[in-house]
Amino acid sequence: MFDAHVDAHAAEYVAQLIELCRVPSIAAEGGPAIADAANLVAALCRAAGVDAALIPIAGGPPVVLGQAGPGPRRLLIYNHYDVQPPDPLDEWISPPFAPTIRDGILFARGVADNKGNLVARLAAARAYREVFGALPLRLTYVLEGEEEVGSPHLDGFARAHADLLRTMEGCIWEAGYKDEEDRPAVSLGLKGVLAVELRARTADTDAHSASGGLYPNAIWRLTEALSTFRSPDGAILIDGLLDHVRPPTDAEMAMLARLPYDAAAVQRRMGIRGFLGGLTGVPALRRLMFEPTVTINGILGGYTGPGSKTVIPCQALAKLDIRLVPDLTPDLVMGLLRDHLARRGFADVQVMTSEDGLMPARTDPNAAIVAVVVEALAEVHGIAPNVYPSMAGSGPMYQLCQAYGIPAISTGVGWAHSRNHAPNESVRVADFIQGIKVMGRVYGAFAKSVI
Amino acid sequence: MFDAHVDAHAAEYVAQLIELCRVPSIAAEGGPAIADAANLVAALCRAAGVDAALIPIAGGPPVVLGQAGPGPRRLLIYNHYDVQPPDPLDEWISPPFAPTIRDGILFARGVADNKGNLVARLAAARAYREVFGALPLRLTYVLEGEEEVGSPHLDGFARAHADLLRTMEGCIWEAGYKDEEDRPAVSLGLKGVLAVELRARTADTDAHSASGGLYPNAIWRLTEALSTFRSPDGAILIDGLLDHVRPPTDAEMAMLARLPYDAAAVQRRMGIRGFLGGLTGVPALRRLMFEPTVTINGILGGYTGPGSKTVIPCQALAKLDIRLVPDLTPDLVMGLLRDHLARRGFADVQVMTSEDGLMPARTDPNAAIVAVVVEALAEVHGIAPNVYPSMAGSGPMYQLCQAYGIPAISTGVGWAHSRNHAPNESVRVADFIQGIKVMGRVYGAFAKSVI
Repeated sequence: MFDAHVDAHAAEYVAQLIELCRVPSIAAEGGPAIADAANLVAALCRAAGVDAALIPIAGGPPVVLGQAGPGPRRLLIYNHYDVQPPDPLDEWISPPFAPTIRDGILFARGVADNKGNLVARLAAARAYREVFGALPLRLTYVLEGEEEVGSPHLDGFARAHADLLRTMEGCIWEAGYKDEEDRPAVSLGLKGVLAVELRARTADTDAHSASGGLYPNAIWRLTEALSTFRSPDGAILIDGLLDHVRPPTDAEMAMLARLPYDAAAVQRRMGIRGFLGGLTGVPALRRLMFEPTVTINGILGGYTGPGSKTVIPCQALAKLDIRLVPDLTPDLVMGLLRDHLARRGFADVQVMTSEDGLMPARTDPNAAIVAVVVEALAEVHGIAPNVYPSMAGSGPMYQLCQAYGIPAISTGVGWAHSRNHAPNESVRVADFIQGIKVMGRVYGAFAKSVI
Repeated sequence: MFDAHVDAHAAEYVAQLIELCRVPSIAAEGGPAIADAANLVAALCRAAGVDAALIPIAGGPPVVLGQAGPGPRRLLIYNHYDVQPPDPLDEWISPPFAPTIRDGILFARGVADNKGNLVARLAAARAYREVFGALPLRLTYVLEGEEEVGSPHLDGFARAHADLLRTMEGCIWEAGYKDEEDRPAVSLGLKGVLAVELRARTADTDAHSASGGLYPNAIWRLTEALSTFRSPDGAILIDGLLDHVRPPTDAEMAMLARLPYDAAAVQRRMGIRGFLGGLTGVPALRRLMFEPTVTINGILGGYTGPGSKTVIPCQALAKLDIRLVPDLTPDLVMGLLRDHLARRGFADVQVMTSEDGLMPARTDPNAAIVAVVVEALAEVHGIAPNVYPSMAGSGPMYQLCQAYGIPAISTGVGWAHSRNHAPNESVRVADFIQGIKVMGRVYGAFAKSVI
């Protein structure tokens, strides 16, 4: 009955999604489109029977806080109404903010990341009320407008609404997708991340390289410091860092063993010869999800123009990101890095960060919301989803969920070729409609679950 | 008698030097000033009684080949009439090409490097003839016009004049100076140099750093390769390279022990904390003169702008120079580098060079020309010169001298504050006149020496 209702109203839901995708709510640009999107999202909430308040954020776009339904179960839903910039524009087949359906696929910037999910989750609340007369649980939608620029104010929002968040018993996180075999994927965590800059300075000025055997050289110094951070097989050597890595449980390792992973296909697609340490299969998945990483993002020093310049550079810098798994935190890792450099004789190499970093987030696979989502997906799609204990990427899940004890799971309406952040972003219309059916089941089942 | 003649004509010699310094013969700019300088140098030769021929050089300014005097002893003299660019112009007290004497010091671009020496050596030939009636030996002046851009055609010139060069029994090389205590310094060699570029490429495109634990990273790869080249104390680790380093003889080590070297003063001036490996004294001098160096001149890869970018860079490059001592050659070192990288598992890291490099050059301290120059300096200056078995820098001495078995010694009219290549380059007029007296003695004594 629910599914038939959704099918009968599919055109309306698609029209809502198209309307929202017409708004060029590019977070990096700010401007009136962001405010237009916030107002439209609030209107979509109200159309779905969800009370909506625009919560002003100092220095950022408002959070649309939607609330509907009675208790006792309380479910949090996190989405964002901002999008990535659409460049390069000339690679779009239809314009990024002129949503266009071709062969059952809806193309528009933000349709997969993350407006399709936002609209589906509101549509499911509306359909549920229309079919069953009332919502079976308390829904709280946190719909922010600056996820694509790193959610700089989400932590502040969460702290200001801590009492509300502490009552939440599960969270449906931002997004999810189907893989190449059309099997849905859900994930239970995200890595944290700390971005740092290392700077070496070895003299007041550059010097003639005739003295290269005696004078310190900032690039050598930086290279030597970096070489103490990681071995060529990707194993992290920063003193004490691995002591804080929570090993995967047997249940989590069993989840890994069930996941598909075609390392050779990834390597072919990227044009790489092999993975660090020759990893494949479960050990590769374990590193992706359960191990921290240290990546040099950029390095610069001395003369890099045409020809040669026989100079000893006196300064050099490297930028790195360090992906964090529980129980690493950005502050902890900054301290470990400083201690490591001092202990290894590199106290002169400065390490600094200009950002707070992100905490890692991971949900217990036994949390009620996990089983509810997995069962809903299996029922609607006719195939059990792959459950990823974590993503390899990072996001602001901890600030909104784990910090308040809320188990969170990512699921959504994307497909294997959604091309988030790239030209010709898309969702399949059928997946979008199925996503509404999934969410209706999640609302119904979570209402009955025992926490 | 010779000295009195030189003193009586000092104003003429200074006028010649000023005339030559007025010509802005900047090799890096080419243009008519270079040809003007070549013609003026040929005229100065003829005024000194030296036959001068402008030897055309395909793709470069002519070499002025000056010849005078009978045999049997044959002495080669190497100088250049081109100069460095004068930037930064606003730091010059008087304009770089308006030679100006202040407090007995002649300021002009090129006056120390190398026109003062060129003019003094011609003036000495003229004075010798005027005082003694004829030159006592055969003098051959090789005066080139592109030393400041790396003497790209000197090797070709030398090959074309190999028969002439093979008859030479000694060479007075380009330049020399007095130290802070006004003690003359001479040197018997130069290091060679090989400039190389290392390039790492690890994938077709940059990738998201979420995969940083698995995907190869060009900057990590380059850093890892570089860290196999040198230990933090400056010791070279390139496989087999040190096997080709000729150890200093006992006589050369004894020369080192006689040389002054205030490591602390150098460190203060440069703003550095200490030398690599904590070297000071003779071990520091040994490294400067008798050991090869590996210097990273520049490094570049990935994102180095403001903020952070979570990227795995797929390409990175580093530029290095390797200073060579006998019996290392640029070709040999290229081969060793390639073999080293392949043996250490870095066959994917490309190493290339766009230049031929320079061979190292070193003169036997027992060569006749060494004793002749040392004695002439001691007599004129009243103080024994410091004899450096080699400079730490590089130059084209091998191509012109050692390749044809010619022992070469550097000496000249500079002082401790000549500021070669920098604004307010200068020589003291008295040093210039003394340099003429030194060269007159060198011509006379070398004519009588037993080879």
